Amino acid sequence: MKKLINKPEDVVVEELKGIEYAHPDLVKVHYDPNFIYRADAPVQGKVAIVSGGGSGHEPMHGGFVGMGMLDAACPGAVFTSPTPDQMLEAAKMVHGGAGVLYIVKNYTGDILNFDMAADLARSEGIEVESVVTNDDVAVQDSLYTAGRRGVGVTVLAEKICGAAAEEGRSLGEVAEICRKVNGWGRSMGMALTSCTVPHAGKPTFDLPDDEMEIGIGIHGEPGRTRMKLKSADEITGMLMEPILNDLPFRAGDEVLLFVNSMGGTPLIELYVVYRKAYEIAVNAGLKVVRNLIGPYITSLEMAGCSITLLKMDDELIRLWDAPVKTPALRWGV
Amino acid sequence: MKKLINKPEDVVVEELKGIEYAHPDLVKVHYDPNFIYRADAPVQGKVAIVSGGGSGHEPMHGGFVGMGMLDAACPGAVFTSPTPDQMLEAAKMVHGGAGVLYIVKNYTGDILNFDMAADLARSEGIEVESVVTNDDVAVQDSLYTAGRRGVGVTVLAEKICGAAAEEGRSLGEVAEICRKVNGWGRSMGMALTSCTVPHAGKPTFDLPDDEMEIGIGIHGEPGRTRMKLKSADEITGMLMEPILNDLPFRAGDEVLLFVNSMGGTPLIELYVVYRKAYEIAVNAGLKVVRNLIGPYITSLEMAGCSITLLKMDDELIRLWDAPVKTPALRWGV
Repeated sequence: MKKLINKPEDVVVEELKGIEYAHPDLVKVHYDPNFIYRADAPVQGKVAIVSGGGSGHEPMHGGFVGMGMLDAACPGAVFTSPTPDQMLEAAKMVHGGAGVLYIVKNYTGDILNFDMAADLARSEGIEVESVVTNDDVAVQDSLYTAGRRGVGVTVLAEKICGAAAEEGRSLGEVAEICRKVNGWGRSMGMALTSCTVPHAGKPTFDLPDDEMEIGIGIHGEPGRTRMKLKSADEITGMLMEPILNDLPFRAGDEVLLFVNSMGGTPLIELYVVYRKAYEIAVNAGLKVVRNLIGPYITSLEMAGCSITLLKMDDELIRLWDAPVKTPALRWGV
Repeated sequence: MKKLINKPEDVVVEELKGIEYAHPDLVKVHYDPNFIYRADAPVQGKVAIVSGGGSGHEPMHGGFVGMGMLDAACPGAVFTSPTPDQMLEAAKMVHGGAGVLYIVKNYTGDILNFDMAADLARSEGIEVESVVTNDDVAVQDSLYTAGRRGVGVTVLAEKICGAAAEEGRSLGEVAEICRKVNGWGRSMGMALTSCTVPHAGKPTFDLPDDEMEIGIGIHGEPGRTRMKLKSADEITGMLMEPILNDLPFRAGDEVLLFVNSMGGTPLIELYVVYRKAYEIAVNAGLKVVRNLIGPYITSLEMAGCSITLLKMDDELIRLWDAPVKTPALRWGV
């Protein structure tokens, strides 16, 4: 295992300490229970948005805390759900009187723990709504999931809902926008290599030197198929086709095209993939009106990529373009 | 070789096409000769800043083209200097009447070609200054370099000089600020793994499963030493010590601390390293007033990191904080 870490059990806390040192203007870090929250929380009268999940997907979610996006993020151990006390204490810290939206990726542990946290928060008088993302078209059920997995659309939902909350929309309205984004977004990923969970010390799965896995999950959960390595253009086609057919997207639709690194794939390759994905989208009659390209929802050092397509309308475009100021996404301020 | 590419000889052009599709609001791409330039170039009366170098270090330099940073970037083949005609044509495209600054990393091929381009541009009546970056403290001479290699400080110089040019400073002044940044910055890197140049099809060097290389170059050039893998804290110390001792930085100095991924190392590890680098800096009496953390000057998919420390003063802080709007760095707008 070749990683820039100290003891595996210290990775998350040491990462949090790094974030605390690096971004005191944007976020604060609470330890035991662990969560990252806006430096200016609570923002009175604003819906507070809290997300979280296993660590190892950075910058998601901690890198998305700040003005215009999340109010708090709860990091679990690597690839392990955070606990209800993290989610509850985070909600209490950032609640500004207008309720809390939990954005939850569809993994069984996250669902259970966020549900419990929501019940606990409600019993303390905080209004809570939860929205589950499940945009991964690769497989129906999976290793840690009943139904589809929540992946790339989560990043987009956090940005768009964060902007809606800044606009002063109500909890019900922000939750409805979150459901709309999840309903209008589809994703699929692939891996060239496995990743290694620090505690495990060895690769999550074995993938021969000449093979890849299509439809991989962000924790290395099995995808649709393994096959011999193909060209970037063929791979991009294999990701785009099921995405396009699933919603289904229609000619004339405006879309946001998000090409994401799984962690170990560098930017030069992402642009090669973006090029082909863009051409496929345009050939399908779509108008690519916005995009995001880079490592935003990763699987440690896994090599590979995922593609997310989100149907946009004027409201979503306006919210996407709104100012955001977080460690990992920033524009307009 | 596991990469998201098509034919190795098409990687750079296909990446450029992806950039062209993705960022038409920020940049345009010129082919044959290849360069990326500001969508609103030339900006009349502003010093134009042009950089370039081999591809494989993305987002450097093409991702730094836009308002507040570069006017143009010339990508060579992977790990191969661009040619004088690229640099000349880029200069002619973006020259707004106030001269052109070439920012050149210290590699023999880049120096020769940028020198030739500068002569050609001058013969066409364009005032040109060139500044060479050489901030890597690891080794004195190297595989492709006489003297020290130019690495991380180049990213910082491009941001800071870009802001100075936007302020309307003269060519001589912008060049002087570039020399100041280079003189005040020091870097060192390390590798956990090699990278693979697409054309070569096999790793640039062999590194056993339990070893790392300290002082590596961004093309995999030999560093100072190979040794058994150590902890993140020990590695961070081995990078920080020669940096701190070289300038030398003094107690009370304000610094920008830049922790960079070589491409394959994910953000969670960078924050673990940032944490220790920050503590070492603070223990040395330095005040870390700004930072940058992420993959900004990469070596394809190499796993590893580099650290750059730049001494700051009020002028450099103001220029660092100034608005920038490029594909890879954006704030204030």
